[in-house]
Amino acid sequence: MNLETQVKARIESVQVEMNRIGAGLLVLGLSSGMRYLTGFTDEPGERMLLLLVPREGDALFFVPQLYEPQVRDASPVERFTVWRDGDDPALVLRHALTKVGDLRGTILVEPTLWAECLLILQQALPDNSFASAAGILAPLRMRKSAEEVELLRRAGELADAAFVQVTQEPIVGLTELQLAAKLEANMLSAGADSVAFNTLVASGAFGAMPHHRAGQRKIEWEDVVILDYGCKVDGYCSDISRTVICGEPTPAVVKAYDAVKRAHQAAYDSIRPGVSAQDIDRAARGVLKNLGYGNRFIHRTGHGIGLDVHEPPYIIEGNGISLEPGMAFSIEPGVYFPDQFGIRLEDVAVVTELGGVLMTTVTRDMQVVG
Amino acid sequence: MNLETQVKARIESVQVEMNRIGAGLLVLGLSSGMRYLTGFTDEPGERMLLLLVPREGDALFFVPQLYEPQVRDASPVERFTVWRDGDDPALVLRHALTKVGDLRGTILVEPTLWAECLLILQQALPDNSFASAAGILAPLRMRKSAEEVELLRRAGELADAAFVQVTQEPIVGLTELQLAAKLEANMLSAGADSVAFNTLVASGAFGAMPHHRAGQRKIEWEDVVILDYGCKVDGYCSDISRTVICGEPTPAVVKAYDAVKRAHQAAYDSIRPGVSAQDIDRAARGVLKNLGYGNRFIHRTGHGIGLDVHEPPYIIEGNGISLEPGMAFSIEPGVYFPDQFGIRLEDVAVVTELGGVLMTTVTRDMQVVG
Repeated sequence: MNLETQVKARIESVQVEMNRIGAGLLVLGLSSGMRYLTGFTDEPGERMLLLLVPREGDALFFVPQLYEPQVRDASPVERFTVWRDGDDPALVLRHALTKVGDLRGTILVEPTLWAECLLILQQALPDNSFASAAGILAPLRMRKSAEEVELLRRAGELADAAFVQVTQEPIVGLTELQLAAKLEANMLSAGADSVAFNTLVASGAFGAMPHHRAGQRKIEWEDVVILDYGCKVDGYCSDISRTVICGEPTPAVVKAYDAVKRAHQAAYDSIRPGVSAQDIDRAARGVLKNLGYGNRFIHRTGHGIGLDVHEPPYIIEGNGISLEPGMAFSIEPGVYFPDQFGIRLEDVAVVTELGGVLMTTVTRDMQVVG
Repeated sequence: MNLETQVKARIESVQVEMNRIGAGLLVLGLSSGMRYLTGFTDEPGERMLLLLVPREGDALFFVPQLYEPQVRDASPVERFTVWRDGDDPALVLRHALTKVGDLRGTILVEPTLWAECLLILQQALPDNSFASAAGILAPLRMRKSAEEVELLRRAGELADAAFVQVTQEPIVGLTELQLAAKLEANMLSAGADSVAFNTLVASGAFGAMPHHRAGQRKIEWEDVVILDYGCKVDGYCSDISRTVICGEPTPAVVKAYDAVKRAHQAAYDSIRPGVSAQDIDRAARGVLKNLGYGNRFIHRTGHGIGLDVHEPPYIIEGNGISLEPGMAFSIEPGVYFPDQFGIRLEDVAVVTELGGVLMTTVTRDMQVVG
């Protein structure tokens, strides 16, 4: 499908839903949501750049002059309001709002829009109520097309290759940041747009902190090291975790690693249309509980992924959403022993009629490295 | 100054200002502002993690359980409300708000807080008015300490070194993304925490789009190529632009390059305490206007920099703020010829009593590369 057809179809789908729930306007800042609906995005910045989608009629880009050429270049959306460095953007926005469409109804804002923009919108439209647009964008974005899955796969292949590369060379003696840099450089030079998030390298006791990033600690012999990283291809993310052992693993590490691998497999095996998100979580959690690691698995089993590295559906107890073909999410069981080590294995799976298909396929067998 | 003393002093400064303007609470999400006030931050994500600063008494971290260890590890702030995967964070937040302090007055929110969080806060506190916290955080953050300037300088040195490295090897035949990857890998492997923003490599006609990122276009002989990139060291950013010429430059390129270099120099020479931000803009703009490029310089001269790559003070017409020692900002004049090429030269300068000091010092002379 070409971009113009795709953008038109996606905006129309949003408008159908807006009419159904009585929304007057949808507002997005620079975000994955903007990219999904228009083909264009960039990193959010201090210059206000918005997409305004009225209930009916054409969507409007509200852009700083500096951005106009590349927004027009990247997106088939044709309606623009342009403001210049030196203008008061709030004032220009107020004018744009008077002509964008019939604004009666709730104003929906993308969840990640900056509060600063929401405050400006609330001042400009004091009689409207405001609500999060999460409920109308997420259902559309959750079901990936074949083209989108192909990009998830390409991003996954680059992540796989980076793992193979770094485990062929010594890592003992590198700092966590140096190892992170090697992984990132590998993906970037092989054609990734960018990293999907700052790479996590959690060595030794830092491995027990699931969200530790990477620091100046030097990797030592006997360390258990979690690598958690990914990249973007045409905006679509990969996200993989592998845990490597520097030298001979202790029996406790071998046992815990095996448990995590089984939990990962159980989650993967339970993927099929009609199963709920929480069923996948329960599959992984059940294995770890049975093996005596119930209280060591302190986070959800996974998160959806696409243009955002974390997006619905979340694979967590309490999420009864029924899986459908095209949904993509991570399965990432882990166990954490404070002050000692952590182990996590993660791949992204896409739901098909026949079960889950993995976007990263590099070995999950324990890798002993030097 | 150790982190504990620094955090205490910064939070107290904010509270003094909150009392002065009648604010009841300051709310920050994962952001540079949170790092500035607490020592901790991370990439913003879907799990609500907030810092609540009441007008009086201790600040409170509202954190997902998963994050608690590393927040405590990174920050001396001691007061916590912790919620778990499976809780309704909005409900837990509502409870935390009842005990954080005396909330009479305006609720100030960090400009980059997600709209989703602001909507939850507005529901929880329907009788309060809400406003942007930009006005109280920016003045504090604008004046950098000697320690902060040292980090800006280290980030700058890594950017300088990356430029030297990539210009020693052929670039013709690389895609923009491959050249961007080389710059980024260079900074990361030399010790940067991360890149400061996705590297811009704008070759040929893309150079005329000031915010073009980097794409699949292959760099060719006779291209004029803008490199605009930077990294972070302990959270502090560098930001440099250089323009290189592949082979013999045309007379038009030589003339325009010289004009940009003069504009950069004029802006730099005009830096001293008491001069206004717009005076720096005028200095650069005046040179380009006199040389016949007035309508080719289509953006402001610069932006402040620190924990954010773009922050106040903005170097733009209309900004009368008076420069003070410790302020740090980019000077980045450029000229843009649609469908032909662009040229930009950028360095970060810090204001001292005696004038500006540059954080990147690699040559601004025209570099002819192959």
